[in-house]
Amino acid sequence: MTTPSGANPADTAPDGKIVLGKNQYGKAGNHVVRITRDTARHEIEDLTVISQLRGDFESCHTEGDNSHCVATDTQKNTIFSLARDGVGSPEAFLLRLGKHFTTSFEWVSGGRWAAEQFTWQRIKVDGKEHNHAFVQNRTETRTAVLLIDKDGPHLFAGLKDLTVLKSTGSEFHGFPQDKYTTLVETSDRILSTDVAARWRYNTAELDFNAVYADVRRILLETFASVHSLALQQTLFQMGKNVLQAHRNIVDIRFSMPNKHHFVVDLAHFGQDNPNVVFWAADRPFGLIEGTVKRDDAADDLWESVAGFC
Amino acid sequence: MTTPSGANPADTAPDGKIVLGKNQYGKAGNHVVRITRDTARHEIEDLTVISQLRGDFESCHTEGDNSHCVATDTQKNTIFSLARDGVGSPEAFLLRLGKHFTTSFEWVSGGRWAAEQFTWQRIKVDGKEHNHAFVQNRTETRTAVLLIDKDGPHLFAGLKDLTVLKSTGSEFHGFPQDKYTTLVETSDRILSTDVAARWRYNTAELDFNAVYADVRRILLETFASVHSLALQQTLFQMGKNVLQAHRNIVDIRFSMPNKHHFVVDLAHFGQDNPNVVFWAADRPFGLIEGTVKRDDAADDLWESVAGFC
Amino acid sequence: MTTPSGANPADTAPDGKIVLGKNQYGKAGNHVVRITRDTARHEIEDLTVISQLRGDFESCHTEGDNSHCVATDTQKNTIFSLARDGVGSPEAFLLRLGKHFTTSFEWVSGGRWAAEQFTWQRIKVDGKEHNHAFVQNRTETRTAVLLIDKDGPHLFAGLKDLTVLKSTGSEFHGFPQDKYTTLVETSDRILSTDVAARWRYNTAELDFNAVYADVRRILLETFASVHSLALQQTLFQMGKNVLQAHRNIVDIRFSMPNKHHFVVDLAHFGQDNPNVVFWAADRPFGLIEGTVKRDDAADDLWESVAGFC
Amino acid sequence: MTTPSGANPADTAPDGKIVLGKNQYGKAGNHVVRITRDTARHEIEDLTVISQLRGDFESCHTEGDNSHCVATDTQKNTIFSLARDGVGSPEAFLLRLGKHFTTSFEWVSGGRWAAEQFTWQRIKVDGKEHNHAFVQNRTETRTAVLLIDKDGPHLFAGLKDLTVLKSTGSEFHGFPQDKYTTLVETSDRILSTDVAARWRYNTAELDFNAVYADVRRILLETFASVHSLALQQTLFQMGKNVLQAHRNIVDIRFSMPNKHHFVVDLAHFGQDNPNVVFWAADRPFGLIEGTVKRDDAADDLWESVAGFC
Repeated sequence: MTTPSGANPADTAPDGKIVLGKNQYGKAGNHVVRITRDTARHEIEDLTVISQLRGDFESCHTEGDNSHCVATDTQKNTIFSLARDGVGSPEAFLLRLGKHFTTSFEWVSGGRWAAEQFTWQRIKVDGKEHNHAFVQNRTETRTAVLLIDKDGPHLFAGLKDLTVLKSTGSEFHGFPQDKYTTLVETSDRILSTDVAARWRYNTAELDFNAVYADVRRILLETFASVHSLALQQTLFQMGKNVLQAHRNIVDIRFSMPNKHHFVVDLAHFGQDNPNVVFWAADRPFGLIEGTVKRDDAADDLWESVAGFC
Repeated sequence: MTTPSGANPADTAPDGKIVLGKNQYGKAGNHVVRITRDTARHEIEDLTVISQLRGDFESCHTEGDNSHCVATDTQKNTIFSLARDGVGSPEAFLLRLGKHFTTSFEWVSGGRWAAEQFTWQRIKVDGKEHNHAFVQNRTETRTAVLLIDKDGPHLFAGLKDLTVLKSTGSEFHGFPQDKYTTLVETSDRILSTDVAARWRYNTAELDFNAVYADVRRILLETFASVHSLALQQTLFQMGKNVLQAHRNIVDIRFSMPNKHHFVVDLAHFGQDNPNVVFWAADRPFGLIEGTVKRDDAADDLWESVAGFC
Repeated sequence: MTTPSGANPADTAPDGKIVLGKNQYGKAGNHVVRITRDTARHEIEDLTVISQLRGDFESCHTEGDNSHCVATDTQKNTIFSLARDGVGSPEAFLLRLGKHFTTSFEWVSGGRWAAEQFTWQRIKVDGKEHNHAFVQNRTETRTAVLLIDKDGPHLFAGLKDLTVLKSTGSEFHGFPQDKYTTLVETSDRILSTDVAARWRYNTAELDFNAVYADVRRILLETFASVHSLALQQTLFQMGKNVLQAHRNIVDIRFSMPNKHHFVVDLAHFGQDNPNVVFWAADRPFGLIEGTVKRDDAADDLWESVAGFC
Repeated sequence: MTTPSGANPADTAPDGKIVLGKNQYGKAGNHVVRITRDTARHEIEDLTVISQLRGDFESCHTEGDNSHCVATDTQKNTIFSLARDGVGSPEAFLLRLGKHFTTSFEWVSGGRWAAEQFTWQRIKVDGKEHNHAFVQNRTETRTAVLLIDKDGPHLFAGLKDLTVLKSTGSEFHGFPQDKYTTLVETSDRILSTDVAARWRYNTAELDFNAVYADVRRILLETFASVHSLALQQTLFQMGKNVLQAHRNIVDIRFSMPNKHHFVVDLAHFGQDNPNVVFWAADRPFGLIEGTVKRDDAADDLWESVAGFC
């Protein structure tokens, strides 16, 4: 194996001066519940919000000078105050937050704002939807991220923990055989995953709730409809169908575990098992990650979407 | 706010053909426990490992052709088999894994391998360390990531969930005041965080365990010693001290929550509270993230360290 | 405060010989997925099962004599083997398991078997339910416990994590005022909880799935319909309505957090807040636990069910 | 199988009137951090506390009459106020809380108070313990429960999540063989568990911190020292040693998973595996629960402590 990037084995010391690099800071876990109660039929919006600012925060780090350091408590207050005028959609709310911070403080050049939204359904009483009583639906969590940099805003929508399963219609064979291969080929297996997907919009003017609902529909329908030869194939088709239907989406990324369901060998107990009894394993699990994109889509915008700055 | 990146409001449709973008796949959650038992005094190495391959997997995604698709089960088997010859350090083990896969399959051009390692201490019986009985120490989790791309291997070490607290020696004041500011300035507060840090090495030839132990020591000692005017200041000094001591480290990134401890107002109950009784809040929390680096360090290697590919 | 139970301050030493007390052992986390595939329209049953045996296991504990110790691995195998003949309902499946173990091994006099069942819904494609593709609905988890002791089987059904919220129709006032009281009375608040309930049946011959669905309906409808003066009042009415509708249920126990939603004070920002913007807090939370029962119901059967009061 | 308890198949309807049964309510998740700062060398006590009251709360449940309903918010305030005068030990603190509530409100006849305490160690700088900087040690969580009923207070101490492992010195064989037995006997295996234990004191006058430390020591030393033929045997010996050393402890209960570490079969890869490489599995897992007690110890006090057998 070659030496790691840029290393000179004879002199591994970099010459660089020690400086502050990329950074962002703010408040996470702001759990906002917004009730619309203009009529007796209430509406509920329930989301957690992160706000993180980027810009000129050098002296805060190097000298403890807080004159630029908009308090994370202030960011929290702003989130709750802006919610007074409504949420609408996580994307629209993040756009309002980002605009506020980047226009209120001249040294704030950008940032990262993110939300996770939870879904509530009306409880039915005697078959009729209740006006103000709800039950939470945890089928999936809706996600949104707004990045603002010198090129302007970049908006990512998404979902996670959408757990799906096909009890047939999935095969896996034809894979390479080497010394370490013990897996048996199969032409009929359970395929199950927790869909996590994020997609990037090329516009901030969109009916975000309607597009979200339609992308979710396409993801589910495609998972169900594709006769799968590999989870990668299913993933690609899910992304392709989303991009074909939504020209405002530039690219879509998936991170999907392959949640193994092993056919239990019951022969020892005198029983057959024609794909009827499965053991659902936790770990290890497959982890399939991939991007489906238009061929002119930029990759470099994604760095801050998940994880560290 | 301007229109998002690259969008043309009059025609938001990108012209791009739909193609496969960045992707990686493999097996996660491989929990390996390796016992060295050459003498009566056993040693234990305990880690979870992820292996994900990158390379030419186009036809797997677009056609379900698995001829290049090294099974995730095979990747799992390889991990356990290579552990037979020892682990040594998470970094060394990942380097062996990465070398195996990139040299065994010509279409595998790179990948991402990662580990989390857990620490065990010997149980003492009558004050004497036991030969083969251990108690787990969950003070922190050690992390490691190896990326291999066309420029070669890139190695990142790290730790997470190292929870620290100072009961004094922390101030926060002088921050900007705006309409949304209600936070009161303080010259004495509790400062507490869960340190998560990752740092990049410029070499694959290193005593990784020794360097890890020393970086951990520096992080703790610096947190304790810095009289803090902002968590950002503490973060920067922690990183600076690490870089000054270890010339094989190119840059270091932190993600640190500000775990708020609020002084409880006991006046209503006829009591004072001179920073004695605190309420430890969960959410919302501050989230301070930053990089300390040598000024010639590249940023673009970090994209895959945490999160999606 | 008086001295703790049975203690004699002058001589706190109990005279008792040291013996084995109550005990049970087995296998937990058996995750069974059972597919019914007699027709193209598959059915899925998905549950985790615990099996724990009670009986004469004295010598295993005191001498390490395993001649009575039915291996936990054997218990696991039995679970998967019995699932070959179908699940039906968690209660029916536990009854089959309990009967097997208590009739197969003469020293097994009883035990505790428990299950958690997860719900899947068919994915709709073009508005039509798919035959073998499902999406998981995590609205609640269904629970079941079977205890067998010398008096025979005792069967408990239940659910947990059924999260509900009322945006109005909840008051809280008239509570005692003491030195430590700072809470302000309110005649309009959000009421939200995660319903956890367990109820005991007086029969093993029941359409368990139908009764479960109806109890769930009653719990939701009652939560929605009761104008609440205290969560305790809502709890009692939920239980009473269940008992009135289902004469095969002897008693029902609830453990329900009061998930506080605090009205955010926006006055500092020049805004009113007529119960529109709330902060959903995590901790601390209220914890309301209570039993509704027929007045001849025994209490002592509940010890092994769970940590409820 | 016989009919469940008390059921008459011909007439399964119980005749009982529907009434309120056992109940308790209060505030959970009160996270108190108490700093002792009389000298420059600070001390830290960090615990979460639950308070739940029992007594005459009938009309609150049946009528929504809150005149007896001491607000859970008031209970929270009381916890923080009492912490102003120190914590000392979780047991001593709970005793003060219990005494307060049962003597302040005549209709409060008892209750359940519980705590979990976290451990901090001083950070060492240049080998010297720092005065006010700490790192959290998550080796185990200390637990305490106080029940007060008509017979007075009952005090339970405990710990949980104390993870231990022996790399040899554990056998398992001689178990019954039936149709469902496939497990192979072994004379050398890894034994690992997360110790959860609770023990009851017969006095409220004790150096709780000293006894806790000693019980913890005995549990670890016994786990290490016993050559194990079954986890049950280890459990019993751990309890017996505690009771023999501490005459103020009446009984002790354990709930311990058997965390399976499977020897990986490497023969397919041309390797032996003499107990060197293990796969640490998550689920299913053994679950071993048992009580060691003096033969005159009462069982019925344990119902409200936790979900142990």
